[in-house]
Amino acid sequence: MSNEYLFKRVKIKTKTGLEIEGTVLPRYALFSNEYLTIKLDNGYNIGIKKDNIVHIEEVERPPKREVVIYKLDEEAATKSSKTTKIILTGGTIASKIDYETGGVTPILTASELLEAIPELREITDIELESPMSIFSEEMTPHEWKRIAEIVAKELLSNPDRGLIIAHGTDTMGYTSAALSFALQNLPSPVALVGAQRSSDRPSSDSAFNLLAAALYATSNIGEVSVVMHGTISDTYALAHRGTRVRKMHTSRRDAFQSINSLPIAKILPYEKKIVLLRKDIKETKQEGFEAKTNFSDKVALIKFYPGMSGDVIDFLVDKGYRGIVIEGTGLGHVSLRLLNSIKRAVEQEAIVTMTSQCIFGTINMNVYSTGRKLLEAGVLPSADMLPETAFVKLSWLLGNYNDIDVVKKLYVTNLVGEIEYRRTISAFPRWYHGE
Amino acid sequence: MSNEYLFKRVKIKTKTGLEIEGTVLPRYALFSNEYLTIKLDNGYNIGIKKDNIVHIEEVERPPKREVVIYKLDEEAATKSSKTTKIILTGGTIASKIDYETGGVTPILTASELLEAIPELREITDIELESPMSIFSEEMTPHEWKRIAEIVAKELLSNPDRGLIIAHGTDTMGYTSAALSFALQNLPSPVALVGAQRSSDRPSSDSAFNLLAAALYATSNIGEVSVVMHGTISDTYALAHRGTRVRKMHTSRRDAFQSINSLPIAKILPYEKKIVLLRKDIKETKQEGFEAKTNFSDKVALIKFYPGMSGDVIDFLVDKGYRGIVIEGTGLGHVSLRLLNSIKRAVEQEAIVTMTSQCIFGTINMNVYSTGRKLLEAGVLPSADMLPETAFVKLSWLLGNYNDIDVVKKLYVTNLVGEIEYRRTISAFPRWYHGE
Repeated sequence: MSNEYLFKRVKIKTKTGLEIEGTVLPRYALFSNEYLTIKLDNGYNIGIKKDNIVHIEEVERPPKREVVIYKLDEEAATKSSKTTKIILTGGTIASKIDYETGGVTPILTASELLEAIPELREITDIELESPMSIFSEEMTPHEWKRIAEIVAKELLSNPDRGLIIAHGTDTMGYTSAALSFALQNLPSPVALVGAQRSSDRPSSDSAFNLLAAALYATSNIGEVSVVMHGTISDTYALAHRGTRVRKMHTSRRDAFQSINSLPIAKILPYEKKIVLLRKDIKETKQEGFEAKTNFSDKVALIKFYPGMSGDVIDFLVDKGYRGIVIEGTGLGHVSLRLLNSIKRAVEQEAIVTMTSQCIFGTINMNVYSTGRKLLEAGVLPSADMLPETAFVKLSWLLGNYNDIDVVKKLYVTNLVGEIEYRRTISAFPRWYHGE
Repeated sequence: MSNEYLFKRVKIKTKTGLEIEGTVLPRYALFSNEYLTIKLDNGYNIGIKKDNIVHIEEVERPPKREVVIYKLDEEAATKSSKTTKIILTGGTIASKIDYETGGVTPILTASELLEAIPELREITDIELESPMSIFSEEMTPHEWKRIAEIVAKELLSNPDRGLIIAHGTDTMGYTSAALSFALQNLPSPVALVGAQRSSDRPSSDSAFNLLAAALYATSNIGEVSVVMHGTISDTYALAHRGTRVRKMHTSRRDAFQSINSLPIAKILPYEKKIVLLRKDIKETKQEGFEAKTNFSDKVALIKFYPGMSGDVIDFLVDKGYRGIVIEGTGLGHVSLRLLNSIKRAVEQEAIVTMTSQCIFGTINMNVYSTGRKLLEAGVLPSADMLPETAFVKLSWLLGNYNDIDVVKKLYVTNLVGEIEYRRTISAFPRWYHGE
């Protein structure tokens, strides 16, 4: 069977109901001749036992992916006519090494930043503002509101000017989700950008990330994105949808990755090019900009672990918390020992929601009896929302809507790309297994 | 420069101090001629700006990775002379669909399992025991102790018999860490195995995983591993070191992956072959088996989030908790608003430790002032330990050692592979960016 289809694109159906499309490769040395090796479109090779194939046919290769390329100008030589505003909030991207202690401390002035990266001026005229200087672990819903209000004011007074928010990386994913909910139908792009290594270190990623963010800010992408290195080298940056991005490594330059979802765009700062990776990207709009900048500080995120008791939930409810996002296990489970505390929380009109500590995949509380009992108790499933995004969303909903039924309805509804129902196999990363 | 080195293996040094070794590829269409594209050993391609290269030289290709192959016998035809004991604890692998509700409920009898997978008998003679039937979200330190004692008793009475523990997948990573600490210097292999889809569904992974686990159980690998699908197809399973493995997807068959570390082995169940992927794998030993099966139930795992207050830490300390593992941000941070509560916990002889919600990478609390202040307050850094493993380790240490200084010392010391100081770039998975 394999020779006939070698290097051809085939569609296969297996006994187990799997449908696979890809290119037939020569037999992989480790596996016996009983297998057909298929290269999937995402680069994975998989082996299918020939015995398990119930149908195989050659199919046409699909046309090359349609990429929409945004380029500063045809020859990438002149800069954008749009200006950009950089808002410094703190973090490594605005930090220097303290030679006394060897550690990193924040710098405060905007001019220092521009001096360090003169190439920025080749992309766009910029203005700078430094309304705060906060390590990102100190950000709270109060600071989300402050930043959202600063951005809203800018977008209202200068709707043509893109915005870059320089932010510490530790909680940048939370702030990007906060701004995604707070600011909708953007007249100009909003990019959050940070650095994993400070700007006076030779391996700093500040310049590369800021150049990419500047390019994003001059585009017509009407979304809040995190713009950071896409790989460990200076090849491309990625713009990640603000509700989909997570810091996945403590120190790598490509620590920020989109989860359960594709990034919005690849950005090549030296070539002044943006390659869009999705078809559902919102464009900037001249009308309809909405700012709802309140966040409740009475929402908690708690991670379930074996042996955990319901005490913490009781404690939070007694403290007046109005929302509790649980990071449960698997498809959305916790021990039923917590059930009474959860019921009590729901009775007292707290909203209890379920996310998964697996990070990848989606909540489905209908499969096992534990999930069904939690649903009956009033726990809201969070689909494929990131736990961090779910926490921010509930804080935003409780900050802006008084009707608890409206909050519940909006929580389970996709608002700004935080929930996706179409799943792509490629969104799960490829792990190294010693090949 | 590129033509001269095309397809050769080179070592490169860049201005920024990066050292890279790999094979030079033809120019990638998206990037301009200013870049050299290098294929790294882990399959990544990276682009290096030629201007940034300060040194390049051709180097010899390294010899092929030394793989140690364990095979049931040369012709993979006869079965192992070793017998295997399967201990059912519950979970999907021992479950069936409840046709009344459409959900999944556990089955209780061991014979049902063996009837479903007769091929097991081709690998090894097996015995079965079903001491409990618990959904894995209901496992607690108390059940870890029970399972560890059952396993210890088996290993003492039948040291030649490998063990398979069938377990729900939701908290299997926690239990595998618990058994890794509790049972050291194993006389026979111990495999935990589960299923992501129940055994009466056509797409079930029960049989494949159990066959792989049986092969593992007849080997001479003296470690506690989680044995599960390595890919979405039936090509190979992976044996993951018990302290390194995490359920990374709510439903995929290859949900279990090693974090910050390589798996122990690839297992090809139909070929009855085990390919070892590491050189530091412990072999089974006839002497020195140690069982320390106590776990403290006064340890909590708490995840930091923006706006979190120290109240929860005060609450736990007042409740008598003796250990608190924090899942902080980035390199190991929380807001300094929590500092007083942390200091109070440490004063009351609770052990407070720091892990990262990034999951990948390693704690380093010396880089930023926040980290240094937390260290001064007595917070213990957890190196590259998984938060879940750190939680289990602290529970195990406090269950078995009375001297708090011994507990602190052992916490920061690698005991069973849970901490690694050598970092490999390949351990970070490869993300799909729409190529």
